Amino acid sequence: MDYDIAIIGLGPAGIQAGIHAGRRKNKVIIFGKTSESALNYAHLENYFGFKEKIEGKELLSAGIEQLKKADVTILEEDIIKIEPLEKGFKLITEKEKEITAIALILAMGVKRKKSFFKREKDFIGKGVSYCVDCDAWFYKGKKVIVIGDGSSAIWGAKFLTQFAKEIYFYFSKGELSSEEKKSLEEKGIKILTLKPVEIIGENEVKGVKLEDESILEVDGIFIEQGAKGPLELLAPLGIELDPETFNYVKVDREMKTNVEGIFACGDITGPPFQVAKAVGEGCIAGLSASDYVSKVKRES
Amino acid sequence: MDYDIAIIGLGPAGIQAGIHAGRRKNKVIIFGKTSESALNYAHLENYFGFKEKIEGKELLSAGIEQLKKADVTILEEDIIKIEPLEKGFKLITEKEKEITAIALILAMGVKRKKSFFKREKDFIGKGVSYCVDCDAWFYKGKKVIVIGDGSSAIWGAKFLTQFAKEIYFYFSKGELSSEEKKSLEEKGIKILTLKPVEIIGENEVKGVKLEDESILEVDGIFIEQGAKGPLELLAPLGIELDPETFNYVKVDREMKTNVEGIFACGDITGPPFQVAKAVGEGCIAGLSASDYVSKVKRES
Repeated sequence: MDYDIAIIGLGPAGIQAGIHAGRRKNKVIIFGKTSESALNYAHLENYFGFKEKIEGKELLSAGIEQLKKADVTILEEDIIKIEPLEKGFKLITEKEKEITAIALILAMGVKRKKSFFKREKDFIGKGVSYCVDCDAWFYKGKKVIVIGDGSSAIWGAKFLTQFAKEIYFYFSKGELSSEEKKSLEEKGIKILTLKPVEIIGENEVKGVKLEDESILEVDGIFIEQGAKGPLELLAPLGIELDPETFNYVKVDREMKTNVEGIFACGDITGPPFQVAKAVGEGCIAGLSASDYVSKVKRES
Repeated sequence: MDYDIAIIGLGPAGIQAGIHAGRRKNKVIIFGKTSESALNYAHLENYFGFKEKIEGKELLSAGIEQLKKADVTILEEDIIKIEPLEKGFKLITEKEKEITAIALILAMGVKRKKSFFKREKDFIGKGVSYCVDCDAWFYKGKKVIVIGDGSSAIWGAKFLTQFAKEIYFYFSKGELSSEEKKSLEEKGIKILTLKPVEIIGENEVKGVKLEDESILEVDGIFIEQGAKGPLELLAPLGIELDPETFNYVKVDREMKTNVEGIFACGDITGPPFQVAKAVGEGCIAGLSASDYVSKVKRES
């Protein structure tokens, strides 16, 4: 085996798992790109230990330093295939490197559905948000629009009424039920029937253009299109998913999946999609995988 | 009800729970003393986001600022009694204040057993450690002694062989089995039969005095006496404990205990005793308790 532990995903969960597993003196490799972590575009004030608002980018670059100190090998490549071996796993990277490891930690997060707007990515952290729970506070007394396709979007719009002054809502999939409609209107949320088609603004969101070419001025756009996991990669491994949504990997309190030697942590195990939750699970996954590797080595 | 949510414990788990519950616009109160958090005496380099070694004290004081920003009321008193009400809970503080809340988050950590040495507390973080997993790295190439009464002490001594140059072991309860003895000696660990009775050193650990008055020079003392939870407080509530050890509160993945309206997070739910794990659980407990409070309010 090339490594004791291979971690897929270079966000807070994977990094925290790597720190703990590396400090346990395992031979650890971590795959991924910090630029692909959802944290890379976030600024946050709800992560224990930071008095002032911090940039996700800064946290990630500190994390990379911590991985290096823990002697973890970092390979900035995506994994495109995972094959189970008799004892352990083979991973194939986008550049067709092959790496084997005794244990595997899945920390690749969730892939958001395709964008709603064309230039959406340019405005992440500059008025476009995917997380009401994280960012509502930044819109105190402001005007926002929530765009989404399900219950989390409806919940998000209502939650925002405690912060934002004016809230617009666009349902991106089919029609709202009359009950849903009523519950939104009771909270003073304005339901748009015209589809937003373009983000207005230079360096930050100033508004959205609607399909009739009219402009709706807003300070923030919350896109709550649910979340879809990169689960295609995992299908050949027989990993059990959360039986309620089938969107997330099912884990126990030790972050074990149903497949021996595979652990998971962070957004991929389901909400809340918070940095604190991700590092907590990363810590446990890193230590559980370490215990597993010790056991395998003892027995062989 | 005076508050929506009451949190017991002013360490990383309780603080992170408070930050999330407060930002959800609940009326939140938190009880405890940062000086009683195990983190207060720690320095750490394994918490995601901090490039350099940090002091636990600093993290706690940043956390207090974060609680204030989230409009959480902080009361620096211990809770001496919890009474279940028909819907909610009544808490009584050491100064006999009575406070009621809809939901309760238990985050009071674990109480270590009584000290092994008289002056032990003066040396915490200055050569005395209670966590091999956290601090082994600080003793690379050094001389240490492990004192403890069970399997975690034995595991800790063996783990330290990857870091420390010389390791002594004193078993503080009964006798080691011949198998345990052998497993330690095979790793080059020296088993002491003379009891250590005193810590030698002015501002930091220089060694221990043994019962025959001889001095053993060491750089670090690891005390691994297991951990006992402040569970007496919880007995009247009928809270279910972890069925394996009966030392920790049993929780599910949403940090719910078996008692409706009571959540738990951090060391009190069991190992690993790590800051990352505590904040991860705190985040989930804070959000779960918030969801619970919303449900109760909707239904009443």
